[in-house]
This record gives sequence, C-alpha cells and structure tokens, in this order.
Amino acid sequence: MNEMSAVKPQDALALALAGDMEAVNALIRERMASRHAPRIPEVTAHLVEAGGKRLRPMLTLAAARLCGYQGDDHVKLAATVEFIHTATLLHDDVVDESTQRRGRPTANLLWDNKSSVLVGDYLFARSFQLMVETGSLRVLDILANASATIAEGEVLQLTAAQDLKTDEGVYLQVVRGKTAALFSAATEAGGVIAGAPEPVVQALFAYGDALGVAFQIADDLLDYGGSSAAIGKNVGDDFRERKVTLPVIKAVAKADEQARAFWVRVIEKGDQRPGDLEQALELLQSSGALDAARAEAFAWAGKAREALESVPDHPLRAVLSDLADYVVSRLN
Amino acid sequence: MNEMSAVKPQDALALALAGDMEAVNALIRERMASRHAPRIPEVTAHLVEAGGKRLRPMLTLAAARLCGYQGDDHVKLAATVEFIHTATLLHDDVVDESTQRRGRPTANLLWDNKSSVLVGDYLFARSFQLMVETGSLRVLDILANASATIAEGEVLQLTAAQDLKTDEGVYLQVVRGKTAALFSAATEAGGVIAGAPEPVVQALFAYGDALGVAFQIADDLLDYGGSSAAIGKNVGDDFRERKVTLPVIKAVAKADEQARAFWVRVIEKGDQRPGDLEQALELLQSSGALDAARAEAFAWAGKAREALESVPDHPLRAVLSDLADYVVSRLN
Repeated sequence: MNEMSAVKPQDALALALAGDMEAVNALIRERMASRHAPRIPEVTAHLVEAGGKRLRPMLTLAAARLCGYQGDDHVKLAATVEFIHTATLLHDDVVDESTQRRGRPTANLLWDNKSSVLVGDYLFARSFQLMVETGSLRVLDILANASATIAEGEVLQLTAAQDLKTDEGVYLQVVRGKTAALFSAATEAGGVIAGAPEPVVQALFAYGDALGVAFQIADDLLDYGGSSAAIGKNVGDDFRERKVTLPVIKAVAKADEQARAFWVRVIEKGDQRPGDLEQALELLQSSGALDAARAEAFAWAGKAREALESVPDHPLRAVLSDLADYVVSRLN
Repeated sequence: MNEMSAVKPQDALALALAGDMEAVNALIRERMASRHAPRIPEVTAHLVEAGGKRLRPMLTLAAARLCGYQGDDHVKLAATVEFIHTATLLHDDVVDESTQRRGRPTANLLWDNKSSVLVGDYLFARSFQLMVETGSLRVLDILANASATIAEGEVLQLTAAQDLKTDEGVYLQVVRGKTAALFSAATEAGGVIAGAPEPVVQALFAYGDALGVAFQIADDLLDYGGSSAAIGKNVGDDFRERKVTLPVIKAVAKADEQARAFWVRVIEKGDQRPGDLEQALELLQSSGALDAARAEAFAWAGKAREALESVPDHPLRAVLSDLADYVVSRLN
C-alpha cells in the first residue's frame, strides 16, 4: 500500500463503486421487506443499517467491474452476498450468545433468539430468490457450495472449541467457513457473471480465499491484542469463550509441561481465574506464537496480491491489492 | 376413501414408490455426511432416521411419476424437499423450546440449540446444492419462493402468538408457511421436472397447497382433542404455548364478555390456572368453533381432491385423492 495514501482501501472501493452500491442498498431495502411480518425488516434493518463496511458486496461489484461487466446482475449478486452474510451474523450471535455487534446490542438481545433464527432463515431464502433471478446456474452452484462450507465450518468451530487437539488444518477449515468461503464466492461469482475467462475466474476465487483467510487470522490475533474500537469486540473474548484459534494452536504446539497444564485448565476445563488472560498473552508472546501467526496472516495477504496478477489491468485491481495489505496492516 | 381398504394411503404411496424412495434414502444418507464435522450426520440421523413418514418427498415422487417422468432428477428433488423439512424442524424445535419430536427427545435437548441452528443451516445449504444439480431454474425458483414463505410464516407465527387480534387471514398465512408451502412446492416441482403441461403443474400446486392447509388445520384441531400417540405431541400444547390457532380464532369471534375475558387472561396475559384447558375445550365446543374448524379442514381436503381432476389418470392419482381424505379422517 502506498504509505502516503490517506484513503483507506475500503473507502477507495466505496468511492469507485458508489453508484453500484447505491443500487445494492436500494435492492437490500426492497427485499428485506415482508408483506406480512413487520418483525423481519425491523430485525434486518437493525443489522443492515448498523454501518457495516459492506466489504463482501463490494468484492462482488469490483470483481464484475474489473472484468468489464456492463449489466445489472452484479447488483443482485452483491445483495445476495450481503443477505447471506447478515443471515450468518444473526445465527452466529445466537450460537455465541453475543450481546454486542458493531458496537450495538445484538438482535438476539434486543428481540430474542427465536427472531434471530427465523429472520436469518428468511434472509437466506431471500438471498436464494435473488440469485435465482440472475439465471446463472454456475453462480447458483458457487453460492450453494459456499453456503454449505459456511455452515460446515460453523459446526466444526462448535465442536473444535475447547478441544486442544484442534490442529492448523481444522483451524483453516473453520476460517474458510467463517470468512473465506463467502469472500471467495463473492469474487468468483463477480467474475462468472461478467463472463470472464476461466483463469481469471480462478484468480478471483484465489484472491477472495486468501483475503478472507488473512482477514480472519488478523481478527483472531487482534483478539489477543487489539482495542475494542478496532475490532468491535473486546480483547480476550475468544479466550473467555475457550476458542482454539491460530495463536493458541501454535502456543500449545510449543508448550512445555507447565504451559500445557495451563492451556488444559483454561481452555479445556474452562477453569479461568483472574490474571489468566495476562498469563495467556505472556505464553503467546514467549512461545513465538503471536509472531508466527502474524507471519502467516502476511503470507496469505501476499497470496491474495499474487492472485491479482492474473486478472485484467484495471484501476480497481490496485485497490483490491491495497485491500489485501490493509486487512493485515491492523497487526502493525 | 374406500372404507374397506385396510392400507393407509401413505403406506400405499410408500409401496408404489418403494424403489424411488430407496434411492431417496440413499441420497439423503450420502448428502447428510460431512467430511469435517461429525456432529452434522449425528444430529441429522437422529431426526431423519426417527421414522418420519417421508410424506413430502413422496409427494414429489408421486407428482413426477403420475406425469410420466422417467428420469432421475425427481429423486434429487425429493431429497431436497426432505432436507428443507428437516432443517425447518431443527429450527422450529429451537424456537418452540420443544423437548419431544416424533416421540423422541429433540436434537436441541440431546445436543444443544447451537447444534440445531447450525446443522439446520447446513441441511438447508445441502438442499440448495441438490436442487442446483437438477439444472432447472424453474424448480429453483419454486423452492426459493417456498423457502421464503416458510420463513416468513414462522416469523408471523412468532409475532401472532399471544395476540387475539390474529384473524383467519393471518392464520392461513402462517399455515401456508408452516406446512402448505412445502407441500405445494413438492408437488409443483415434481410436475415441472416431468415437463408436465402448465394446467397440470398448476393443479399439482393447488393439490399440495390444499392438502397442506387441510393437514395443518387438522393438526391444530387435534391439539384440542387428539391423543398424544396420534399427533406425536400432547393435547393442549398449543394452548400452553398460547398459540392462536383456528379453533381459538373462531371461539374468540363468538365470545361474549365473560368468554373474552377468559381468552385474554389465558392467551394474551398467559395467566393459566388448573382447569383452564378444560374450560377452553368447553368454550371451543359450545361456541361451535371446533365444528366450524373441522368443516374447514374437510372443505380444504375437498379442494385437494378437486384439483386432482386436472392431472393425468394414473393409479397414483387415486392414492393422492385418498391421502386428502386421510389427513382429515383423523378428525372423525
């Protein structure tokens, strides 16, 4: 990223795609309505209008535009992707029993778990209607597969939590489910709808996948060191929820007997006492786990940039490249 | 229905479609697997193998077969429909905080709400992959719309519960969501995949819709008079959950001041005391609400039979006609 640049890459994306994003937002507002059940737009609006970055729909729009797409279906796909994302957030907050999201109370707290489960289902069905409207079976296939990977990753995370046998392979699968599957589907679908040649479609997939993995590793690292404002959640949330993320996996792999006993107590047994988070941070630091995880995040950002070498030369390509740097720049 | 007949219509369907259903069950077992998350097939098997009647997939198979279909895609569609049904059951049991389903403990009780939410999402995504494989955009459109109607109906039921202003229009919308939308999508999609002419497709839709409405009204009536064995739940469950179903709507419409005060207390305020269920049954009986609701169930069964007049003459047509009688015969 140009260090003189004052504009963040996602803001540059938002500027470049302003007209398209206006159409996406209008479509989202139109399709989140319900003729019969006013609870649906209430819950959805709470989340959709909470000032999310709209990163995923912008990835779809950018991928389509940099492949020279001139039609309207990319707007439908972008709204589809945002609906899928919103549906997963609603269900995640129920599963994680979260009370805060984007600095505001969660829907499950303001209404109830029931509304979050059912409105999530509704948004998923609406996303499905939208993508059918594009008439592209290939796009439907991409998004159906992404949906399955997302749900599978979430279940895997549920069963892997509190289990110190979780290895980096399982972690990567969880990360693909949580984040990378929708990023890669967003970029790949954008290329497909634009009729891009196969190597370009593959490169767009690879970009989205690597960007998503870099993003999630960075997020998991920030949970052990970022500020609440930067990540929208509190430092140590994953620790308290006994999630086995990359830094912990790496620290456990290097742990001596005493350190291992600590991790078993706090993560597997859930016996957490005052001072344990500080002790965990010390072990993550001294074992080199934080540095190693940080290096992996940067490596995935590098893979994302490399993938862009195979997509058409276009001003948006540079912005996407900057974005890959940006998601890990939070770690500096 | 032939009164001499000893075979129940759904058993006759199962016999006639035995080969197809074997293929459907094999496909369900194959697709409920997860390479990474063993929790998924565990939870799914608990529900799928609990001895459900498989009514919905049989409707799809029967519709396709009576239109002369000779391909394999009806098997995929039937599995799709069963996966959607299973996903909604998992989410329903979370929303209703149910502890029993088909005479066994629910998944949310055996595992937890989290697993039920996420495995439901997974099955919905898997259903979506299966239907994409048929390559029929029209079928995708039908099932996407049904999915939205289902979720919307569930949210509507949530907000209509405990609200005595709920009228028969809202009730019908809820019933379409809970039951009829998937029945009608199952039969319509079967006709579409078989390439049936438009009037036949419409008739199959109308049959599934009317069958589903008759089925749900009968279910709601049995909640005030069936045995636990017959309906797989306990008499008075809806009353205790303060659900405003058709019998209650009709009784409230006829209520004098004293009866109205009773309904406000037990349904809206949720102040239920010993003897209230018996009092409710007495009011439902004396107001004519039970008789009127029963008459409506039979009228919908009649509509279902009538719709079949426009579908091809085929042995399965008589079985489907018997099925329409059968779903309300439980009320005699």
